[in-house]
Amino acid sequence: MAGTQTADARLTEVVNDLLANLRGLIRKHQISHDEYRRAIAFMMETAAKGEIPLLFDVFLEATVDQVDAAGRGGTETSVEGPFYAPEAPLLRSPCVLPHRANEPGDILLLSGTVRSVEGDALSGAMLDMWQSDAEGAYSHFNIPADQAPWNLRARVIADQSGRFEVQTWVPSPYQVPKDGPTGALLRGTGRHAWRPAHLHLRITHESCETLTTQLFFSGDPWIDSDVVGAVKQSLIVTPAKHEDPKDLKNKGFAKPYYSVVYDFSLPRVMRKAA
Amino acid sequence: MAGTQTADARLTEVVNDLLANLRGLIRKHQISHDEYRRAIAFMMETAAKGEIPLLFDVFLEATVDQVDAAGRGGTETSVEGPFYAPEAPLLRSPCVLPHRANEPGDILLLSGTVRSVEGDALSGAMLDMWQSDAEGAYSHFNIPADQAPWNLRARVIADQSGRFEVQTWVPSPYQVPKDGPTGALLRGTGRHAWRPAHLHLRITHESCETLTTQLFFSGDPWIDSDVVGAVKQSLIVTPAKHEDPKDLKNKGFAKPYYSVVYDFSLPRVMRKAA
Repeated sequence: MAGTQTADARLTEVVNDLLANLRGLIRKHQISHDEYRRAIAFMMETAAKGEIPLLFDVFLEATVDQVDAAGRGGTETSVEGPFYAPEAPLLRSPCVLPHRANEPGDILLLSGTVRSVEGDALSGAMLDMWQSDAEGAYSHFNIPADQAPWNLRARVIADQSGRFEVQTWVPSPYQVPKDGPTGALLRGTGRHAWRPAHLHLRITHESCETLTTQLFFSGDPWIDSDVVGAVKQSLIVTPAKHEDPKDLKNKGFAKPYYSVVYDFSLPRVMRKAA
Repeated sequence: MAGTQTADARLTEVVNDLLANLRGLIRKHQISHDEYRRAIAFMMETAAKGEIPLLFDVFLEATVDQVDAAGRGGTETSVEGPFYAPEAPLLRSPCVLPHRANEPGDILLLSGTVRSVEGDALSGAMLDMWQSDAEGAYSHFNIPADQAPWNLRARVIADQSGRFEVQTWVPSPYQVPKDGPTGALLRGTGRHAWRPAHLHLRITHESCETLTTQLFFSGDPWIDSDVVGAVKQSLIVTPAKHEDPKDLKNKGFAKPYYSVVYDFSLPRVMRKAA
């Protein structure tokens, strides 16, 4: 935007409507000069604490996702959120996500197939995965990269049939950062800060539109009140619990584990131009 | 706001309405995820360049001023803008604003009386004044404080009759900072960056509500299209030009000067509680 030299019709239309709305709100709610200065101070504090992406993603990204997803077809999308980190390690399915020797929580096996909406297997589809650990922490954000580089993050390449099989750990519900201005705004407007547990996925294939989505878990205490508003029914899975001693022994697991099978479906590119 | 521990009814009402409006705009204009990410990047750049107050003041402060001023009485208010600096030197009327030995432009004598809306002279009223110089630059912002401390800024104390007489210099129209994201947004939405020349005043007296206002000059090329939208008809003055050689000699001025007489009127405190 900084390089814009002449008026842009789209930008002008959106910004003029935004300004008309904001000015209307100032009039409707009789915003005082003191409240106005506090709003400026709030935005400056949000910026100083590095929370501008968090603030937007908590309050607005789910609506952007709904707009983007309308009429899309295939697996439903969900928001990317502020915790994505590009260039995660490339792994080939089947694989285990990078993890610590003492990774806490329960093992989760996620498997399935990536197909086009027409049902064609997408050979070599890439699943960029990221998630919290069993304590609600994200590598690169809550866990410094030098302590656990790329913990529970990877770009997983599906096989020739579009099949993938990934070992990871069951994520935990967590609260979005609440010690800064975003948390203060949530509290001040009577909102909790919880997100239900979820896995993030960004699935790409050269022939298809990218699918950014999340998988949620049935029975999660926050499944109906996600602070971010990102849950969609079709994205809720029910993990199967496995505790057969022979099975555990075969897999080399010391305790019961969970599994989820989920097939993804991506629309072909050029959909919108058609 | 960061200290808020429980929900605040006023904050909740305003923020919920703001979010409903923003989400409505996202839907109405079908904002894409790419546009959404550019909006976040724009806010981060605005913060990084220190332009959050500028951005708000350019686009929104005039509306806040209109709301605050409704039913106020007395001299009309105008916006404070982002260039106020507190604690300017205290001077007693009559006085000359702090200036450089080679201060450019034309001398302006501003005089008048500060009264209550009932017409009582406000003895010892204080006029906190700030303005651009004849080249459109503000001390402390465009002119570093160590080069020209408090240039064309002072807190002037009126006499026992509420009278003030201040020598300053005619300010110049100027463009709000346009090399950063605020300027890019102005260009991108087809707006120019000009403000008509103006004097800022913040007038206080213990018995009255503070008057924050500006005086503008008739004939200014930008008087009808102030980028900030802060001009009000009752605040436009027409300076008288003085070129009588005897008068100039008496005053010790080497060239013609201008003068403006303007009386200010402040509402008594407790107006809103009455």
